[in-house]
Amino acid sequence: MKIAILPGDGIGPEIMAEAVRVLRALELPGMELHDGLVGAAAWRVHGHPLPPETLALMHACDALLFGAVGDPACDGLERHLRPEQAVLGMRKELSLFANLRPAKVFPGLEAHSSLRPEVAGAIDLMIVRELNGDVYFGEKGMRTTADGQREGYDIMSYSESEVRRIAHVAFRTAQGRSGRLCSVDKANVLETSQLWRDVMIEVAAEYPDVTLEHMYVDNAAMQLVRAPGKFDTIVTGNLFGDILSDQASMCVGSIGLLASASLGAQQTAFGTKGAYEPIHGSAPDIAGKGLANPVAMILSAAMMLRHSFGLEAEAARIEAAVAGALNAGALGADLGGTMGTREIGDAVLAAL
Amino acid sequence: MKIAILPGDGIGPEIMAEAVRVLRALELPGMELHDGLVGAAAWRVHGHPLPPETLALMHACDALLFGAVGDPACDGLERHLRPEQAVLGMRKELSLFANLRPAKVFPGLEAHSSLRPEVAGAIDLMIVRELNGDVYFGEKGMRTTADGQREGYDIMSYSESEVRRIAHVAFRTAQGRSGRLCSVDKANVLETSQLWRDVMIEVAAEYPDVTLEHMYVDNAAMQLVRAPGKFDTIVTGNLFGDILSDQASMCVGSIGLLASASLGAQQTAFGTKGAYEPIHGSAPDIAGKGLANPVAMILSAAMMLRHSFGLEAEAARIEAAVAGALNAGALGADLGGTMGTREIGDAVLAAL
Ligand SMILES: CC(C)[C@H](C(=O)O)[C@@H](O)C(=O)O
Ligand SMILES: CC(C)[C@H](C(=O)O)[C@@H](O)C(=O)O
Repeated sequence: MKIAILPGDGIGPEIMAEAVRVLRALELPGMELHDGLVGAAAWRVHGHPLPPETLALMHACDALLFGAVGDPACDGLERHLRPEQAVLGMRKELSLFANLRPAKVFPGLEAHSSLRPEVAGAIDLMIVRELNGDVYFGEKGMRTTADGQREGYDIMSYSESEVRRIAHVAFRTAQGRSGRLCSVDKANVLETSQLWRDVMIEVAAEYPDVTLEHMYVDNAAMQLVRAPGKFDTIVTGNLFGDILSDQASMCVGSIGLLASASLGAQQTAFGTKGAYEPIHGSAPDIAGKGLANPVAMILSAAMMLRHSFGLEAEAARIEAAVAGALNAGALGADLGGTMGTREIGDAVLAAL
Repeated sequence: MKIAILPGDGIGPEIMAEAVRVLRALELPGMELHDGLVGAAAWRVHGHPLPPETLALMHACDALLFGAVGDPACDGLERHLRPEQAVLGMRKELSLFANLRPAKVFPGLEAHSSLRPEVAGAIDLMIVRELNGDVYFGEKGMRTTADGQREGYDIMSYSESEVRRIAHVAFRTAQGRSGRLCSVDKANVLETSQLWRDVMIEVAAEYPDVTLEHMYVDNAAMQLVRAPGKFDTIVTGNLFGDILSDQASMCVGSIGLLASASLGAQQTAFGTKGAYEPIHGSAPDIAGKGLANPVAMILSAAMMLRHSFGLEAEAARIEAAVAGALNAGALGADLGGTMGTREIGDAVLAAL
């Protein structure tokens, strides 16, 4: 059980420390933690946000725990040297094509959402976002038009097999939940979306126990505000998934509490290889102050135990400890409380 | 003052009837209304959702009042024959590149938002959406990959001049409001967005009285839930604008109340030529029942008087009548009331 520990930038190291404490407290036999640099932290040392050393480590491990990347010091760099490129590089290099983002309000924390409590309290959804295709990874560049102007372009595309593999993940996810899957696209405008929709319908035939519906992305953004509780599993492409999953996280009211898993097809001796990270970013403004909420990072470790190591009981134990600590008032500044990073970690450890 | 009246499909004709009653009640000298078919209504008669007859009318008029298009009977048609293509065709044919979508809660209606009343009540923003470029109008199609699979593709692009003209509209809009402009892009991933951002910064130099900030689209979707009241003017591309403006409309709680203007560069004898339409769709489920809320359509007529005919006082008069009628309880089923389309129209007319 080799785990790559990639704290990254900003608050990454602080919150990672708490996740590591929680993992160690479980005393899992055979667990090895291997540290690596990523993002601005790697760029400072190796001149690249995702250097060969880190790539080698990623390949050698069974799962990756990823903090956050991003540092204002890198704002002026060329795009391929910026910290966020490490995230894109990791996803592509390890073929992590399925991003799972659960969104659910923790009991007692409904009041922290800007949605009315009864609306926020009803949220319990899972977004399955494709992570290896779309306009993210198509050819892109700057060209000159016939009349001599600069023009930026990015090619959006999906092939059948790319859609099919994420469709299977989504249908299986829906099977393990309520059996309702909503596929989000913009098929009234995009050919890419038309193919997406066609393949979703094809794959649906293999899952007669799942009800598939289709929704345009503009309507989905609307429904996620109006009645987010109506959604169960949502599957969508890389770009729409980026937007909708952040929107859904904020509906829950607490971006500091939400974890994510990025999975590929690669099976290790223990389960599916994957990378696990909080949904929030590196928050440079509060970095190093011991103020960051480590809950999303700790819950990312729980998702890792579940998906990459098949340790469902241990994952559930961490999740219960987090819910217990939150309910007992282990709240940081992001939730109107006074606890710091370490204290919240202590509270979770105590509840384990 | 030639106005094209294009009711379209579903509830379009019913709500258009009320907007026309309100316009006639103003007894504007020289106002001519010219009826045309669009959407499924045009396809039924002419075999195309935007036939030459309608295009000729659009070109001949100074402004267009557009109801809504969309009809389930057209679901199986090839894409270019579907009703929504009429909207895209109109925007392109008339070079309507700037879509203005105000979002503001009507006093007393805060409780209809799924956002908490104090969050919803603070919303007063204007989205300026580019409408003639982006992945909407780039080359698109279905191709076969080297290994024989289908692949859908759509080219996203923006040229300098396309970004510059919408930038000017946005900066001028911000000048007329609070002087704060937020440009939304995904410049950490897209070259199109990088050009967008570069040109926004260039144009900003001409508007020293406007403060420009940049936000990634995923973060914008999040902030529109967390604290929509913090935004004033937002400018963004066609695709992101489609998503964010629908999201913002729903934050207001009442998609049946919001209007939009689509403007180009063409000046008529009276003002800027434009098309005006509600943000909501054709709502086939309630079509023909007299249940639809005509307010968004009536407010679209007000926007037309303001932008295409320079009739600010008349526009404000309609808006005040609508606010008065709503405040006095002229609510349809969409807002928990019992009034039908005609009764709401009566209430607005009475308040004029
Ligand atoms: C950092 C950025 C490239 C990334 C994305 O757009 O995928 C982030 O927003 C995310 O969602 O993980
Ligand atoms: C009907 C559709 C093509 C259109 C769009 O995506 O622009 C609509 O959603 C809108 O926002 O006016």
